[in-house]
Amino acid sequence: MSTKPTLALVGATGAVGTVMREIISGREDVYGEIRLVASARSAGKVLQVRGEDVVVQALAPEVFDGVDIAIFDVPDEVSATWVPIAAERGATVIDKSGTFRMNPQVPLVVPEVNPGDAANRPLGIVSTPNCTTLSMMAAMGALHEEFGLKELVVASYQAVSGAGVAGSARLYDEVEALAGDRTVGTTAGDVRKVLQNKLGDGDDTFPAPVAFNVVPWAGSLKEDGWASEELKLRNESRKILGIPDLKVSATCVRVPVITTHSLAVHATFEREITVADAHRILEAAPTVVLVDDPANGIYPMPIDVVGTDPTYVGRVRQALDFPNTLDLFVCGDNLRKGAALNAAEIAELIVATEYTA
Amino acid sequence: MSTKPTLALVGATGAVGTVMREIISGREDVYGEIRLVASARSAGKVLQVRGEDVVVQALAPEVFDGVDIAIFDVPDEVSATWVPIAAERGATVIDKSGTFRMNPQVPLVVPEVNPGDAANRPLGIVSTPNCTTLSMMAAMGALHEEFGLKELVVASYQAVSGAGVAGSARLYDEVEALAGDRTVGTTAGDVRKVLQNKLGDGDDTFPAPVAFNVVPWAGSLKEDGWASEELKLRNESRKILGIPDLKVSATCVRVPVITTHSLAVHATFEREITVADAHRILEAAPTVVLVDDPANGIYPMPIDVVGTDPTYVGRVRQALDFPNTLDLFVCGDNLRKGAALNAAEIAELIVATEYTA
Repeated sequence: MSTKPTLALVGATGAVGTVMREIISGREDVYGEIRLVASARSAGKVLQVRGEDVVVQALAPEVFDGVDIAIFDVPDEVSATWVPIAAERGATVIDKSGTFRMNPQVPLVVPEVNPGDAANRPLGIVSTPNCTTLSMMAAMGALHEEFGLKELVVASYQAVSGAGVAGSARLYDEVEALAGDRTVGTTAGDVRKVLQNKLGDGDDTFPAPVAFNVVPWAGSLKEDGWASEELKLRNESRKILGIPDLKVSATCVRVPVITTHSLAVHATFEREITVADAHRILEAAPTVVLVDDPANGIYPMPIDVVGTDPTYVGRVRQALDFPNTLDLFVCGDNLRKGAALNAAEIAELIVATEYTA
Repeated sequence: MSTKPTLALVGATGAVGTVMREIISGREDVYGEIRLVASARSAGKVLQVRGEDVVVQALAPEVFDGVDIAIFDVPDEVSATWVPIAAERGATVIDKSGTFRMNPQVPLVVPEVNPGDAANRPLGIVSTPNCTTLSMMAAMGALHEEFGLKELVVASYQAVSGAGVAGSARLYDEVEALAGDRTVGTTAGDVRKVLQNKLGDGDDTFPAPVAFNVVPWAGSLKEDGWASEELKLRNESRKILGIPDLKVSATCVRVPVITTHSLAVHATFEREITVADAHRILEAAPTVVLVDDPANGIYPMPIDVVGTDPTYVGRVRQALDFPNTLDLFVCGDNLRKGAALNAAEIAELIVATEYTA
């Protein structure tokens, strides 16, 4: 085909949707029409994409008529209802939600790792991974290709914007409420008390205050005390990397960072691997930036990574007591590579392979 | 002996020293005279301990004359010089610094784990562990006793007061400078820029801003890219638990929390262990509090733990892919159990076994 495909962005007004519009506006323009779609509440709003004003349309079956590619960033239950409708109307759907990720008929794609999987989509749906999993996939995929990944032990440091616009707003509110009090955070419950006095009760963005705290919980409760986010990290890593028996243990923790997820990763490989091997591979990986010079204070950190596209890797160390094992630290912007960027890249991959002659 | 021993607190004005005076004032009074000792700069200050005013004395060999037990919380190099002087003058020294911890002639003691080691101190010195190691020792010691610990993979979430009073002051400063700006933390370098404008350059409390950030570094650079704090966690755990070949990998990360270190721990045992086993053991461990009911939002967090003595453990999960392995989350107040409390408990142990008839 030679006509440019029509794109629909569903969930255009959210945290990821906002970044998605920026990303699409800043990259090579591969689309014809771009439709912005959101809940009825946001319909009629005017938003910018590619420097042009676009009126937001309410989610309805008809908005997908003539759409070639639809990128969905909406809650799981909205995807469950609307993704099949969009696919039925002929759109190839790239879905950010958790709804279809583990469906064997839906490929789960990270373009740097398993681009070929995107072509095989019997339901017309491609899923994009959870943002925590995504933060490390480009790096782990590159290392796996040469050394064969066997085991992952991961602890996360997850940003509040993983919970959307409300997550960032909540942390800003908390920081404003606590600033200036130079004893808060020194006795049990004092942070809760100040926030209750100043912000009131009833906020349920997070299960506990995040400012001056870390909250060892992300997602919903699953079997045997596991949080959904921890199981996603295990199951999605296995599917993306194509290692069905990859051993994974993860602990997911929310930290007072606005945007950019970080992961401490303990990775065991089939074959002997050195720090020099890892450096060579990570330096060559196109969407990975190696920042690993602790003598000069150089390691990946959210405040330096936020707002940029790559995955940053540093603190690469040979585990002293575990054979074929590296310890490393990874950061990725959870709204960009962790969400919008990966979806945009899947869309571009499909456009490049299927829509250009 | 029936007279109560004389105690000297060296480093009485620091972050740990302040908590130490509180702790000693709040526990059973086992001491006769208590001397407060600090650098010449602080000499003459009047501080409270046991509800009484005490004039701070400058560090000098004579202050140790007649002292039975001296608790040191001072930088490594000050301990290196002054601990032997105090020991020579006849004091039993309990040293919080890293200087003597790995010396084979110096026991490294956590009273819940290896109390017997405190009696065997040929140099008259007992060391107390690094605060990060200490945060998990009571819990891991209890589990080890019954199931035999083999491997630890640890990621830390370390509070700023681990770097002393200056650490807390720096985070309060940063939070004040950033509060009210509801876009900061969303583009690379913006946190650095605001802090530079408002607080100026030149602060070197931490290698990078901590507010709205996580910093994967604690301590000094050691061989092969390891940070000193990560190696301490390995070497000190081995010595305290009496497992010379314990396999340990740790990644230490500073987070914007005032006080209380947290650890995500992946622990492998010699024998099969269930969550129920771990719950039973941790509930029975006298200085451990089990807080493990995620269905009701109950897990250990710094804002609930700070200012209290126990180690809190939660999020206990059976690793899905690793035999004999648990994943769990531990919090401990780094100034109390992580520092002052452990030293006070060692002192009390020595008083109880050696000074009471």
